Amino acid sequence: MRISQLSERAGLPIGTVKFYLRTGLLPAGRQINATQADYTDSHLERLRLIRALIEVGRLSVAEIQDVMVAIDGALPIGEGLAKVHQVTSLKGRDASDIEVASAHELVSSLGWSIEPDSPHLTSLARAIAALDSIGLPPSSARLKVYAEAASHVARNDVDWVLGAPEERQVELALVSAVLWESLLSSLRRLASENQIVRRSTGVPAPRGTIPSA
Amino acid sequence: MRISQLSERAGLPIGTVKFYLRTGLLPAGRQINATQADYTDSHLERLRLIRALIEVGRLSVAEIQDVMVAIDGALPIGEGLAKVHQVTSLKGRDASDIEVASAHELVSSLGWSIEPDSPHLTSLARAIAALDSIGLPPSSARLKVYAEAASHVARNDVDWVLGAPEERQVELALVSAVLWESLLSSLRRLASENQIVRRSTGVPAPRGTIPSA
Repeated sequence: MRISQLSERAGLPIGTVKFYLRTGLLPAGRQINATQADYTDSHLERLRLIRALIEVGRLSVAEIQDVMVAIDGALPIGEGLAKVHQVTSLKGRDASDIEVASAHELVSSLGWSIEPDSPHLTSLARAIAALDSIGLPPSSARLKVYAEAASHVARNDVDWVLGAPEERQVELALVSAVLWESLLSSLRRLASENQIVRRSTGVPAPRGTIPSA
Repeated sequence: MRISQLSERAGLPIGTVKFYLRTGLLPAGRQINATQADYTDSHLERLRLIRALIEVGRLSVAEIQDVMVAIDGALPIGEGLAKVHQVTSLKGRDASDIEVASAHELVSSLGWSIEPDSPHLTSLARAIAALDSIGLPPSSARLKVYAEAASHVARNDVDWVLGAPEERQVELALVSAVLWESLLSSLRRLASENQIVRRSTGVPAPRGTIPSA
């Protein structure tokens, strides 16, 4: 298809599509003459992924550039997954070495194997330090509940990613980290709303079963 | 204490403290003469909460202004909690009526009582639409796992909030929605990292037990 049709099917202005081409987010089409190129459905899919990452995941163009290199298979799978982890880590001020070490100790006490320089230890340390600073340090009972919930979804995520053909794993890891993240946040807020409604009306929530962690 | 000591103890420049006073995020101190005011530990706690909301939760000054009115008890508790929900809802493009109705149907099928105009239905609809658009629509099995995890933490959150004295409930709901949200995101990323390490090294993760949902 021509760029005009691509732009129409993606629901995006041609200028935006050209911008993604210029910045390399979208691979070039097959040149058919001096001024025209041909685009395929895979270009359309890529455009939709870019929009989803921007609109739902709030990723920057630079971050998407960074991760698209990994999706396009230019890196070995392990490095590709590490790149996804790095790009999608929660940004913010640095945490102190002591705070990071204590976050590492916490996840180790859960039996988790985590590299001491994982970027996610910094964001965990930052959240704990913030709670400490306002006089509401996290109790271990509550941390345990959160860790259980996190394990429950992570096991499912990793099944999904590693169950896919290797050339799609980096993309699925990115989709899990960004779009399923947003889905989890929305469901968590809705679950709270449900709990508050039920308790204020005295209707008990139905009790389902969370399978063993 | 004087403003200089308040600024020092909070680790913030005086200019920042004055900005929070001007914008009403921080209540005025008790005026002791024409040019000086006295501040208490509650001002320090408030400053730390503001910093945590900005640094970890990425809330804007306008959003914090909005929610501080509720924290300070100017609204009945129900409206205060609704304000927290509104301010902390995930922002983004609108979802179509059909997308929102289908998200409402989904949460109803989980047995959750949700108002059809909840802002979180819009963010859930947006995440699902994004997954649909890239050809990776969420399976019901996976949505169920996510909903179980969301319920697990939400039940704990609501116990914590409603177990506090009424005058602190709005603040705790805000802290749950913002800081514990960040903590959950970090733990989820770490749990994925742990799963990937374990599977690539063949070491099975220890199996704990998630209590009944």
